[in-house]
Amino acid sequence: MGRTTRNVTRAARTLKLVLAYEGTNYAGWQTQRRAKTHGKADPPTIQQTVEGALTQILQEPVHLVASGRTDAGVHAEAQVAHLRTRSQLPARRLLAGVNHLLPEDIRVLAIDEAPARFHARFSPSRKRYLYRIYLGAVVPPFLRRYVSQHRGPALATGTMRREAASLAGRHDFRAFARAKSGRQGTVRTITAIRLTRRGQELQLEVEGNGFLHTMVRSIAGTLIDVGRGRRPAGTVRRMLTSGDRRLAGTTAPAQGLTLLSVTYGGGHG
Amino acid sequence: MGRTTRNVTRAARTLKLVLAYEGTNYAGWQTQRRAKTHGKADPPTIQQTVEGALTQILQEPVHLVASGRTDAGVHAEAQVAHLRTRSQLPARRLLAGVNHLLPEDIRVLAIDEAPARFHARFSPSRKRYLYRIYLGAVVPPFLRRYVSQHRGPALATGTMRREAASLAGRHDFRAFARAKSGRQGTVRTITAIRLTRRGQELQLEVEGNGFLHTMVRSIAGTLIDVGRGRRPAGTVRRMLTSGDRRLAGTTAPAQGLTLLSVTYGGGHG
Repeated sequence: MGRTTRNVTRAARTLKLVLAYEGTNYAGWQTQRRAKTHGKADPPTIQQTVEGALTQILQEPVHLVASGRTDAGVHAEAQVAHLRTRSQLPARRLLAGVNHLLPEDIRVLAIDEAPARFHARFSPSRKRYLYRIYLGAVVPPFLRRYVSQHRGPALATGTMRREAASLAGRHDFRAFARAKSGRQGTVRTITAIRLTRRGQELQLEVEGNGFLHTMVRSIAGTLIDVGRGRRPAGTVRRMLTSGDRRLAGTTAPAQGLTLLSVTYGGGHG
Repeated sequence: MGRTTRNVTRAARTLKLVLAYEGTNYAGWQTQRRAKTHGKADPPTIQQTVEGALTQILQEPVHLVASGRTDAGVHAEAQVAHLRTRSQLPARRLLAGVNHLLPEDIRVLAIDEAPARFHARFSPSRKRYLYRIYLGAVVPPFLRRYVSQHRGPALATGTMRREAASLAGRHDFRAFARAKSGRQGTVRTITAIRLTRRGQELQLEVEGNGFLHTMVRSIAGTLIDVGRGRRPAGTVRRMLTSGDRRLAGTTAPAQGLTLLSVTYGGGHG
């Protein structure tokens, strides 16, 4: 009886975390194998920074699994991750404690109990990304970490918008991925894509059921190259049908990219 | 004749600059006499940083006069300053050059020729300030430099709005100033004041023909203290009629304050 009670009390819990971070000073969510720093000390990763704070509070090794990696310099308004723990510390106290320990450029926005089967990476999810292109001659200091500046000829935004529209739907996106595909293949579904002019910014918002490595930045770079006339209209469609990576534009810089949200189906989103 | 030509060519020009800066890493526009740093090196001022870059390009000592000082940590979306120079370097080239030399948290947005009588500080102007109060429990990383967080009891925003309204118009604002008045006295006119809830933020926007030292932060702090019940409704009116500084709330932190714009009458605004 006492034994049963103890087992129940100490059963592993699954906690779902929502995190916001400014990626500027980090080597990404997790270290990429290719990342090389010449002489300088490696910048920390978001993952190890948050795991460190959680470990200190929970007094046990913590392993965080995110919905996906974000590259060095990429930001998140609401990244989702999960952890399993035997600690019974209330989520509210863990939330306050972890934000107390974390640097100000990483915040845990929420911690909630999740079903044991919840997995931040493999549970079906929908992600939204924002890519911000600054068109003005001088980038205001308040935006400098979050936008990528476009210099040079004015962009043909009408053409770019038509190219973007042809990305919607289920396609093989291998031409938009930097790396070889993993076990999940290269077919993904883009459920919504929109290119909007807001003041001096051109904002690309993309929603889908998953994204390949550097896929959003590759989309942004290809659209920009079409917009400035370096690539012909129809490039996106040709990339989708041929799978030819060589047709892609320059991958747009990481700092313009923000993971806006990750939502899960199945009642634990 | 040659002499005249030389004189004409080398006549002093007045240049009007519009600047944006993130005040976080600076000791304000200009060093305040009271600022003390204990052991640490003094952070630079905005003024000396911009003057240094301009001097390097113009190859002559440059003195910048701003519309007014901003305190350490205060930001500006569009501060205005002027300088006089004998250099004939086109304003466009000066603009490109100075932004090349400046750190990314200071940008010169525009440089234009101005009439010789233009004076950024003494020409009649209208200024707009924004004070941002974050009400949520966790400040998102992207806002942390630009807002001041309110913790504690929910604010009675209706009461705050009524208090704010009584500031509009021409008044003696000495109770809202930290320091003794200068030669311009303590009477100012607030031409517009508005308190708006935007998502998790409470934004105070104030426009007037001039502001005393720390006046906007003192207004924000007093409104917050009334909103949380530390000061009774009617405090603002009593401060305006009595001039009693002791009735004021805590001066709100500098980081929440941004100088939005400075506009000039008389055709050189």
